[in-house]
Amino acid sequence: MTRELVANSNVVEMEYAVRGPIPKRAAEMAREGRSIIPCNIGNPQALGQRPISFYRQVLGLLEDPSRIERERSLARLASSAEEAEALSEYVLDYGERMLNELGTGLGAYSESKGPAFIRQAVARFIDRRDGAGGARIRPSDPEGIFLTNGASEAVKNALEILIAGPADGVMIPIPQYPLYSAVIKRCGGVQVDYYPDEESGWTLERGALEESLAGARAKGVTVKAIVVINPGNPTGAILPVASVREVIDFAAEHGLVVLADEVYQENLYGGEFVSFARALGDREVALLSMHSASKGYYGECGRRGGYVEVRNPPAIQGSAVGFLELLEKQASVSLCSTTTGQALMYLLASPPEEGSEPRARFDAEREGILKALHDKATMIKAAFADMRGVECFGKVGAMYLFPRLGSLPAGTTDFDYCMSLLERTGLCTVNGAGFGQAAGTQHLRIAFLPDVDLLERVLPRWVDFHDEYLGGA
Amino acid sequence: MTRELVANSNVVEMEYAVRGPIPKRAAEMAREGRSIIPCNIGNPQALGQRPISFYRQVLGLLEDPSRIERERSLARLASSAEEAEALSEYVLDYGERMLNELGTGLGAYSESKGPAFIRQAVARFIDRRDGAGGARIRPSDPEGIFLTNGASEAVKNALEILIAGPADGVMIPIPQYPLYSAVIKRCGGVQVDYYPDEESGWTLERGALEESLAGARAKGVTVKAIVVINPGNPTGAILPVASVREVIDFAAEHGLVVLADEVYQENLYGGEFVSFARALGDREVALLSMHSASKGYYGECGRRGGYVEVRNPPAIQGSAVGFLELLEKQASVSLCSTTTGQALMYLLASPPEEGSEPRARFDAEREGILKALHDKATMIKAAFADMRGVECFGKVGAMYLFPRLGSLPAGTTDFDYCMSLLERTGLCTVNGAGFGQAAGTQHLRIAFLPDVDLLERVLPRWVDFHDEYLGGA
Repeated sequence: MTRELVANSNVVEMEYAVRGPIPKRAAEMAREGRSIIPCNIGNPQALGQRPISFYRQVLGLLEDPSRIERERSLARLASSAEEAEALSEYVLDYGERMLNELGTGLGAYSESKGPAFIRQAVARFIDRRDGAGGARIRPSDPEGIFLTNGASEAVKNALEILIAGPADGVMIPIPQYPLYSAVIKRCGGVQVDYYPDEESGWTLERGALEESLAGARAKGVTVKAIVVINPGNPTGAILPVASVREVIDFAAEHGLVVLADEVYQENLYGGEFVSFARALGDREVALLSMHSASKGYYGECGRRGGYVEVRNPPAIQGSAVGFLELLEKQASVSLCSTTTGQALMYLLASPPEEGSEPRARFDAEREGILKALHDKATMIKAAFADMRGVECFGKVGAMYLFPRLGSLPAGTTDFDYCMSLLERTGLCTVNGAGFGQAAGTQHLRIAFLPDVDLLERVLPRWVDFHDEYLGGA
Repeated sequence: MTRELVANSNVVEMEYAVRGPIPKRAAEMAREGRSIIPCNIGNPQALGQRPISFYRQVLGLLEDPSRIERERSLARLASSAEEAEALSEYVLDYGERMLNELGTGLGAYSESKGPAFIRQAVARFIDRRDGAGGARIRPSDPEGIFLTNGASEAVKNALEILIAGPADGVMIPIPQYPLYSAVIKRCGGVQVDYYPDEESGWTLERGALEESLAGARAKGVTVKAIVVINPGNPTGAILPVASVREVIDFAAEHGLVVLADEVYQENLYGGEFVSFARALGDREVALLSMHSASKGYYGECGRRGGYVEVRNPPAIQGSAVGFLELLEKQASVSLCSTTTGQALMYLLASPPEEGSEPRARFDAEREGILKALHDKATMIKAAFADMRGVECFGKVGAMYLFPRLGSLPAGTTDFDYCMSLLERTGLCTVNGAGFGQAAGTQHLRIAFLPDVDLLERVLPRWVDFHDEYLGGA
């Protein structure tokens, strides 16, 4: 008989609110037959967002390559009505080219860091995005790109290398995406909080960064890296370029590695995204930038596609191997990331060309999804105006709003508020404490994903709930 | 500028020979235009094994669900010749049923541990395999099943929980699959070696287990768990049921968790596989059994599908949560495993029914692949008979042979041998030291995957090389 197990206390103590007690209660309610609106997580296809057709058509061919020839012969047979539904020669050729590049299809392990042709496509995507080749922006190097199981795996591997002992710290913004606090805990390091300025739209000021660093050092913490999430999670805020530059100057001065979580870089609703790579130019600061197939307009969360691009990889003290070799060794122990996720990263980086047959539909789907997200964010923000004490700062990006709840009734917290909101309306959000927040403030995060009809029904109920919770109008 | 980084020494020191210096040299040679036969890794589709058609047809439908209706209308249009190539109504229905169960398709995050309907299918698969429901074999509980990114992720998560401090040890067989040594190192624990008996076919004797445990305890190591790989990797040997029972008795007596790596359970060529779950019966030993979509006759390595089934999860000292909750928390930080890998685990667990349209082809493909693997293993073993001093023990399972090289020339090791073999013949193997081996012995592991024609060409060259390496006939 197995005795009681003494388990790794880092795992025992680790917390992850996005899948925490509020979503757990929501799952219970769903089992009881209550209807739940899952806004606790950025999972758009779970809320009815349709996948990008072009991606799925190509993935379907990669799964079942015998279809390519069959589609060609069927296209000749079918009447014009059915032909309209047939895959175009462009899609068939695209799939065939990918299969040729893959060589052995989706069923074989790839290189540990992912196939070279996909890493090259990602490098071209980055260069197009940043306008590289111009004055001071260095082109992306495919050898610095690692395909990973979502951005989460990249973050876990990077922090595992960086945290060398219990005094090593990593600066993270408060509020933060709780992957960071969980992984720092799991690796046995120190979480070092810094505070973006909420009322100026969650921008970063040098003073706040210096204060955080000095405080940690005074406690004997060796700060190794700084995490920035842009566009923000949970805040949704898009960082102005001045804040991005501030972080680079700060990291340069103090010899920190920058971890730029840029998975929402295509979720913009008016604001401009400036990548850390672009702002870095030719400076020698070590930068890891993460991206993902889970977010953007595509929202293919379940596929676990992602990449990390490393610039200026640091040398490793006392070791002949460098940072990239350590990342590669970690990747090799897992053999490779999922090939479907890898294929999606290629698709993301290589959309159908201008003027090609699938392009019009691709553009329409992309724009439709982004417009719908923007509309839904706007609707929810408008409802906040009817909620006493609720304020929401920053340009809207990502998939989230993070309103400040003002003063809740004495003795209640944002956790109580979110739990009551769930019980009353079926709306599942995550309370601010799940992400961390400045002392004395209370928030919640809502993913703006439910469709407009659903929002039209639930938002008035939320407004009523809010009113009652605060003790009557 | 980032200073030299002090990196986590566990990651710096971790080794993983399957992707180590010999395969790295092979990759270099391939870039130089040399033709390489990659037998360093169990990656069958990279060596031309064709995927199971049924799996790929269904996955293609899951990717692009609009095809289901289109296939139905095209089937009516197409001439009989083309109809023969069309997807059968059975396949279309199967895909449609899976889509209904998935609800939101492959693009949404699933439950952290994987969708319930897939975990239920896996539980039914386990019960069929073990003949549960009979006298003393308990049925599998879907709540104890976690879908993971390959079996590797399950192993990493389990060992991360088990290793609570630097004195915690995990028993692993020598030779072992280097995932285990790498992850134990990464988690900062102690690797405790035990030695299966090579000449009796890599069986396990109680004495060897006790000796290993006593030795570790004498050094102050707290042994938490024992890993068994059956069929073996790298040995390929199938464990007799007596050895399986021996391990269970041993674990019961000493309160150890059993980690049963059973990913090769469907790679049998004559021997019988008895699972740990079946041998466990109703005893209270904590058991984690891993399986994978990467091996078997399907060999879908790149998909990263896998599961771990937990029986008798141990209570956690000083914590209200149990072992399953810790596994779930780890899973939740990564949100979920890849949905394509999850779908494959469902397909693996739920083959087309007897008498259904795709069944004959499915059976033929499965049997063809297993027969080919057996033939290739037999050919390679036959070649060993022509190599002086080479002996290979155990019933053949998995995808590997692990011959003992006898006495190599003074001053040379199995690493030198394998490197020379690679340079001379293009055959990429992994030397025994990469897996660990009893002192004074030398081995190599070869994956028996190249096709028969290729083996017919390369085996005589290997025999010649061997002769020369040993210094002439």
